[in-house]
Amino acid sequence: MAFSYVTHLSCSKCSRAYCPDAVHHLCSCGAPLLVNYDVRKLAKILKPNDLLKRNHDLWRYHELLPIRSPKNVVSLGEGMTPLVPMKKLGAEIGISHLYMKDEGMAPTGTFKARGAAVGVSKAKELGIKGLVMPTNGNAGAAWSLYSSRAGIQSVIIMPEGAPSMIRSEVTSTDTHLFLVNGVISDAGKIAAKAATDFRLYDVSTLKEPYRIEGKKTMGFEIAEQLLWETPDVILYPAGGGVGLIAIYKAFKELQELGWINSTKMPRFVAVQAEGCAPIVKAWKNKKGESEFWPDSRTVAFGINVPKALGDFLVLQAIYETNGCALDVKDKEILKEQKNIIRKEGAFVCPEGAAAFLAARKLRDSGWIEEDERVIIINTGMGLKYMNKEFMDLPVLQPGESIDSLPVMQ
Amino acid sequence: MAFSYVTHLSCSKCSRAYCPDAVHHLCSCGAPLLVNYDVRKLAKILKPNDLLKRNHDLWRYHELLPIRSPKNVVSLGEGMTPLVPMKKLGAEIGISHLYMKDEGMAPTGTFKARGAAVGVSKAKELGIKGLVMPTNGNAGAAWSLYSSRAGIQSVIIMPEGAPSMIRSEVTSTDTHLFLVNGVISDAGKIAAKAATDFRLYDVSTLKEPYRIEGKKTMGFEIAEQLLWETPDVILYPAGGGVGLIAIYKAFKELQELGWINSTKMPRFVAVQAEGCAPIVKAWKNKKGESEFWPDSRTVAFGINVPKALGDFLVLQAIYETNGCALDVKDKEILKEQKNIIRKEGAFVCPEGAAAFLAARKLRDSGWIEEDERVIIINTGMGLKYMNKEFMDLPVLQPGESIDSLPVMQ
Repeated sequence: MAFSYVTHLSCSKCSRAYCPDAVHHLCSCGAPLLVNYDVRKLAKILKPNDLLKRNHDLWRYHELLPIRSPKNVVSLGEGMTPLVPMKKLGAEIGISHLYMKDEGMAPTGTFKARGAAVGVSKAKELGIKGLVMPTNGNAGAAWSLYSSRAGIQSVIIMPEGAPSMIRSEVTSTDTHLFLVNGVISDAGKIAAKAATDFRLYDVSTLKEPYRIEGKKTMGFEIAEQLLWETPDVILYPAGGGVGLIAIYKAFKELQELGWINSTKMPRFVAVQAEGCAPIVKAWKNKKGESEFWPDSRTVAFGINVPKALGDFLVLQAIYETNGCALDVKDKEILKEQKNIIRKEGAFVCPEGAAAFLAARKLRDSGWIEEDERVIIINTGMGLKYMNKEFMDLPVLQPGESIDSLPVMQ
Repeated sequence: MAFSYVTHLSCSKCSRAYCPDAVHHLCSCGAPLLVNYDVRKLAKILKPNDLLKRNHDLWRYHELLPIRSPKNVVSLGEGMTPLVPMKKLGAEIGISHLYMKDEGMAPTGTFKARGAAVGVSKAKELGIKGLVMPTNGNAGAAWSLYSSRAGIQSVIIMPEGAPSMIRSEVTSTDTHLFLVNGVISDAGKIAAKAATDFRLYDVSTLKEPYRIEGKKTMGFEIAEQLLWETPDVILYPAGGGVGLIAIYKAFKELQELGWINSTKMPRFVAVQAEGCAPIVKAWKNKKGESEFWPDSRTVAFGINVPKALGDFLVLQAIYETNGCALDVKDKEILKEQKNIIRKEGAFVCPEGAAAFLAARKLRDSGWIEEDERVIIINTGMGLKYMNKEFMDLPVLQPGESIDSLPVMQ
């Protein structure tokens, strides 16, 4: 039995096919390439119960990942993050079955570890020695650590405004880190030129066909954790939108595999911030693609992407599943984040909080019904966004005691 | 079938028994209480394969945890952290089967989540409304978040020198946080007084019998991940030492259950920092207890514990398994941490790096043999210790390009 059932790459626009054993970026028509598998053949020999004895990481789905040889797998144990019931918050919002897929529990603390694990593994399999990546921060941290593990050199370019902790994370490796006084699209242009100038593998979002395969495993896991039942709604904070495209792809593959109901898909919701909402704008205008969003800004740094290469795929997934797109305000995101921490003890990141906030609004409007099964993707741990703030905390001397406490309820 | 097979609490020194359904702290003789289960009865009805369909968190071992009713479980999906092979580092050190149990992949980013999940769950079951805890930082972060989830009020006291990021983590909840201009033993005295003054549940290390049960699951998981084989050596960075006591207890229970070889125990190694090594000193002098270590200091903040209440249990586990205790230098810890990050892409914490360094030294001395199976407990993610440092990084303007790169090898 093969380790991978990968067959070929195909263009997401013109369907042209490419070999998965050579280095490819975009299709000659300029659109991203997607990975295809012989799912029908796999369906005959692999059953859900075969997974039970496998490791609790994303490699349990190796047949539907693009790595041909297990010896090329570069893993830090990523995947199989918990699906956490959010009962108190659900009761407050009015959703009886509210779950958080907590991607904070990953190497480097975000879901970017999935894309990096599979992307770097495939780079290793393809014989890549050096790569370059523009990033809003978290993807750069993940790719720099996985590259170190693989013995691949990496060049990372990120906006100066990215959280400083992430910057420190990258510099703890031997990555070459450059900052840009601009946004991720400015970093992207510098990366493209560096790829040519220094013959580096350009792993910009969707210019590299494999990270989406890593993120796809979020969808496999959600289905497995729900005992192969399909949830009703999945809310995803969309920057580049790769995670949403990937989870949609996962559910399609599971349908083809015959492991889930072949007629029901979850409704996908792309959540963006008011200060950077190109996909929401496109969806509202029933467009198939988004327009560049000038002067984009939001506290949810990971979703500050003014124009995503895969926007049309995100919009397709929304249209085909009767989903929607929604933007939320920064101020409300931070309020919701605080509420979630205090109510559920879950230290979500601002992007995750944005998705929870969107669920609240969609429940209020009746778009989500009370008894629907709703999954929120919390893309990372809130801790990564914390600033050292001066806090006015009481300081005691050894031997002193606490004088008073607010009344304990 | 009962959810828990707990029978009673018993004193770790005088064996006096206590009821597990009432609030207890230390035995009347002053020693910590340990939890007992009807393991023989459980052995007749539970088999390893029964676990396969259970959730991938520490509650998969609920029969050997002290919570009687599943409705009292307070969980954020903690546990089942990966056992990551460290091949490159192993090759460098000369250990063929070197693994990292990566506890960084947990809610709040450290293994303290395990103790907090089980401790807070039991507190909820016991009807506790408010608790107080002295901490070096990470336990406080974990307990404050799990308390929020449980709806229990919490008062946390930590040294002023604890990492500032952890301070921010605690204050993001509604915990009452106090700092002390001293070490954890100073915080402990303040906590004890506050417990009396404000009638709070004192959850200081080992004054509360249940957190050890949460940490015990590290041992269950290691055994399950090794397909119920016993490793040769387990290295643990010991502050309070609860994790080491707990993993030892886990292997004892698994032997009684008949799930692992009844004659082989792993050799336990307690790793401390040169600036705070009371257990190492006691072990070198063949003592049964340690002495208070004055002016303790180390970069590995989590193991800065000058006198642990459970020191005699740590020493017992070492003596009974032919283990050892070893101290390492701060400067070498930081060097090893950097080496691990660059070589393996694993962002370990200083405490974890200390344990890796100890493995290196014990291999050099021949105490560990080349083909032994060696497990390092990396107690948390290195990220939590990062400081914002001024870094001299190149800043590009939009449209600029990278001029030169060091030669890619």
